[in-house]
Amino acid sequence: MSKIVRINMNKLSSEWENVPKNYVHLGGRGITSAIVANEVDPLAEPLGPKNKFVAAPGFITGTTAPSTGRLSVGGKSPLTGTIKEANAGGLSAQKLARLGIKALIIEGFPEGDDWYNIYLTKGRCELVKANEFVNMGLYDLINRLWKKYPNKPGIFGCGIAGQQLMFSAGIFGNNPDNSDPGRYAARGGLGAVLGSKRIIAIITDDTDCARPKPKNPELFEIGRKKLVKGLLKHEAREALRDYGTEGLMNVMNESGGLPTRNWRKGSFEGAGKISGEAIRELVDKTKEKFPKSQARTGWPCNPGCVIGCANKVPYPLNHKKAGAIQVSTLEYETAMALGSLCEIDSLYHLAELNRICNDLGLDTIEAGNTLAVAMEAGVLEFGDGAGAIKLLNKVKTKDPVGRLLGLGALRFGQAYGVTHVGHAKGQSLPAFDPRPLKGIGVTYVTSPQGGDHTEGYTIFSEIEGVNPVDPRDKAKGDLSRFYQVFTAFIDSIGYCLFTAYALLEDPLAKEGMLETVRAMLGVEEFDLETYGMAILEIENDFNKRAGFSELDNRLPDFFYTEPLPPTNEVFDVPDSEIKKVFK
Amino acid sequence: MSKIVRINMNKLSSEWENVPKNYVHLGGRGITSAIVANEVDPLAEPLGPKNKFVAAPGFITGTTAPSTGRLSVGGKSPLTGTIKEANAGGLSAQKLARLGIKALIIEGFPEGDDWYNIYLTKGRCELVKANEFVNMGLYDLINRLWKKYPNKPGIFGCGIAGQQLMFSAGIFGNNPDNSDPGRYAARGGLGAVLGSKRIIAIITDDTDCARPKPKNPELFEIGRKKLVKGLLKHEAREALRDYGTEGLMNVMNESGGLPTRNWRKGSFEGAGKISGEAIRELVDKTKEKFPKSQARTGWPCNPGCVIGCANKVPYPLNHKKAGAIQVSTLEYETAMALGSLCEIDSLYHLAELNRICNDLGLDTIEAGNTLAVAMEAGVLEFGDGAGAIKLLNKVKTKDPVGRLLGLGALRFGQAYGVTHVGHAKGQSLPAFDPRPLKGIGVTYVTSPQGGDHTEGYTIFSEIEGVNPVDPRDKAKGDLSRFYQVFTAFIDSIGYCLFTAYALLEDPLAKEGMLETVRAMLGVEEFDLETYGMAILEIENDFNKRAGFSELDNRLPDFFYTEPLPPTNEVFDVPDSEIKKVFK
Repeated sequence: MSKIVRINMNKLSSEWENVPKNYVHLGGRGITSAIVANEVDPLAEPLGPKNKFVAAPGFITGTTAPSTGRLSVGGKSPLTGTIKEANAGGLSAQKLARLGIKALIIEGFPEGDDWYNIYLTKGRCELVKANEFVNMGLYDLINRLWKKYPNKPGIFGCGIAGQQLMFSAGIFGNNPDNSDPGRYAARGGLGAVLGSKRIIAIITDDTDCARPKPKNPELFEIGRKKLVKGLLKHEAREALRDYGTEGLMNVMNESGGLPTRNWRKGSFEGAGKISGEAIRELVDKTKEKFPKSQARTGWPCNPGCVIGCANKVPYPLNHKKAGAIQVSTLEYETAMALGSLCEIDSLYHLAELNRICNDLGLDTIEAGNTLAVAMEAGVLEFGDGAGAIKLLNKVKTKDPVGRLLGLGALRFGQAYGVTHVGHAKGQSLPAFDPRPLKGIGVTYVTSPQGGDHTEGYTIFSEIEGVNPVDPRDKAKGDLSRFYQVFTAFIDSIGYCLFTAYALLEDPLAKEGMLETVRAMLGVEEFDLETYGMAILEIENDFNKRAGFSELDNRLPDFFYTEPLPPTNEVFDVPDSEIKKVFK
Repeated sequence: MSKIVRINMNKLSSEWENVPKNYVHLGGRGITSAIVANEVDPLAEPLGPKNKFVAAPGFITGTTAPSTGRLSVGGKSPLTGTIKEANAGGLSAQKLARLGIKALIIEGFPEGDDWYNIYLTKGRCELVKANEFVNMGLYDLINRLWKKYPNKPGIFGCGIAGQQLMFSAGIFGNNPDNSDPGRYAARGGLGAVLGSKRIIAIITDDTDCARPKPKNPELFEIGRKKLVKGLLKHEAREALRDYGTEGLMNVMNESGGLPTRNWRKGSFEGAGKISGEAIRELVDKTKEKFPKSQARTGWPCNPGCVIGCANKVPYPLNHKKAGAIQVSTLEYETAMALGSLCEIDSLYHLAELNRICNDLGLDTIEAGNTLAVAMEAGVLEFGDGAGAIKLLNKVKTKDPVGRLLGLGALRFGQAYGVTHVGHAKGQSLPAFDPRPLKGIGVTYVTSPQGGDHTEGYTIFSEIEGVNPVDPRDKAKGDLSRFYQVFTAFIDSIGYCLFTAYALLEDPLAKEGMLETVRAMLGVEEFDLETYGMAILEIENDFNKRAGFSELDNRLPDFFYTEPLPPTNEVFDVPDSEIKKVFK
């Protein structure tokens, strides 16, 4: 039977608790949000002792189901003040699941000044002093921990940004080969919540542990096969393997919805130079010149993923480190935030900015928006990649501008008198301008988690040609709710969001996935919508108790008034449509 | 008939509008709040074009009624997000009233990069380009404007802080003799609202204008005399003339409610050295040595004030500028924030910090709280007055720490990972710790305007021995509401809050004041409570539409959990008491 591991930092104790009945069918986001909603005072200071940090593998994670290695982390967000969940791939989720850990709850503050790591092995949870790892770059950290601990452990935690309680701090995870601290549950400043508890890294070793067992192994195997077949044959897989999420750069640029120059333009001249195609070309040429180079696309971010959208981006061919890997994985969101939003068109500068974020433990979306606001404020010029690198490196120094950069775009803007900041509930917006792409705008404003595309990714329908199950769901409010419900389900079960391509278009793939879920649960009936909506209701209820209301469901003024070239759209979704999402 | 002057910065136009019927009986805070509530979208970005800046003299200001030279300024606060009014003495209110200006509304943004002053003379409103005054210290500014414009005009506006859109920016006014930009409607960042409209100063010249006329001059004169008599004979007047508000320093220190060392202590060893008594001693010795020195206490901050709580603090006797004035007026709130809260016990350093704030256009309460948080963060040491001066001077440089300092204590704390920040709704708390002084704590959390003692100054009852009219009003909720209602009335009519000493204890003085009000209005009946509560309701309704609810009516966690030495009290007012204030 799986357990909840509760670590009390005040007592420096850990307990293995039985899983309460009402949590048994939950996993991932479902259980992190339920625990936060049930155990955290919604009015608590997010970086105070009353907040909790919760980590959980997906419900189905650790089994043989494909593309399920997702780790959810949750807490009350210092950035938004709302409930927050963020998830990522990597090694840790599957290992947690196999360790029989349904959720890890970290609560309280330690009394002294010591820092700690958590070391999880079969049936054991150790708090290990970690003072030697404070203020260490994460590349260095993961390499030292892989040397210190046997069996190629999963590692997740916070970097300098989280240790310094910066609101842009994400939770890193190591890549499956430990090459890079590049798996990020990046959003909402949850790295600072972990840092506030004086924890740096959580190390997971599942040696001698078995996979979680479905209640109905036969049905599970039937469903799994259908799903794998659907995933393998869907055309999106090919594009994701070739270009990863970065395949969207040119597509979004063409659509006029690529956030550019701090949300003042919807297309970027330099998009091609920082696109998935450009990365692919660099990878191909690097492999030609350095056949042993690790450079690649089509790489799985967690063992057992049959999609493989991750990449390893090499240094430029004319760089002294040519052939070596500069960063992994360079995602579209990152290329938007640190690229087009700052009008930086050098793939090298972009990859370096990404690497610095990964090393410091910063959310790239928040960091890129913050740099763009710094450019808007005249601190540096738009397009100045070298200057941006220099500035971002100040996050690890005592320079106050580093503190401000770590605080995120909204507050950086406040410090410099800049109101032109793209955010929702204080969280910087990701790579889809809500003026031409109004459905994602509805998600930004209504999601319980602040501005976040992954919370209800309407782009599947708005740009990528995927039809939702019910083709009548075309109104923006219905569209956003459809994807928000779907995502809450996906994020809780532990499947990767990119399984959606097949699920939404291939009835057999969907049937297969639901069979794996029913088989795990041992139930005859399972309703995805009810399950997803229940999680959203838990989250919305927390936010309501934290003081949020429909009045908070809006974007900054300029999105309603400044037309975005080249489409010249404004965000004009009627209030009635916003209100109907969670009526 | 008085008018509303509406200045549209987008059109660079001004209109003299008739006063709508429902505003006729309003003045000061009553009319600024009514205009903001009626004309500003509660969801507007405070520093965006949809916010408005409103200025208004009190309803009775400009007449011969004593101690009524109060200027109210209002808008949506960038610091708190709530509706905001702040008021101060000086020259401008009476001149506005005599110019027949019931309220000045400044709306919209100008299109270009020019800065403007507003020059108001009889029947005229001129927008004058003011680019040469940008980034100018306010001592310099007021002197230049008094040279440029005839007839010793009233001047109010924003300094460097407001021009740079800092959330700590207040609205300065010149002293009656133009010696100092030391009259401050300091709170809530309204200086930034004015700065966002690219206005620096508003110059008022009431040459050839008559006083506003009471509807019933005989009754007015009867009431005025009763009130003057009450004010002159009340014992508080003597103390205020000798020590000003700074007379509270030693009193509060004795009570254990003097905020010290960033809200970690309730008393300060060095209190005596920065007290009203210390100022008085310096003034006396300076006058002895330099008989022509302007040093003094007991000075009226506006013509016709019979109380005279203002001071002119000279440089120390061993300073090369001994005999000259270092700052005016050094208030208790300032001495707390820049003194005890930072454990700075040098009167010279304190006065210099005050002078810098006055020169830059910063709210001293917010600035002092921010410096205390900087000390908490280790940026400098507690007690380091010279370091604090050096740091505060960075506000006018391009150094990012200056930007952060101007942003206020809450956000400075966020940047440095400090959650121990004394604020309510984002506004730094003033000079009364709410743990031993629970009534003022109720005001801090329930006032429509964020943490502000002047919004419901329960200290009259909690410390100073003044009994409210109804001695049953002893529960903290009732006490706070009593003073909030009373203050809303006082701030609208234009009487100084310090008339309260007489009003609350001397029935004849109160009768006289109400007679002056009835005489101005020309009515037989006037109910103070109804009038005051109506204004609070307007403000609370705006905040509700801006997204605030009862859940926002709280202090940071530490006030509930950390006992304050020496009383070892926590803020333990039950929720029911908080909720009943505006039930």
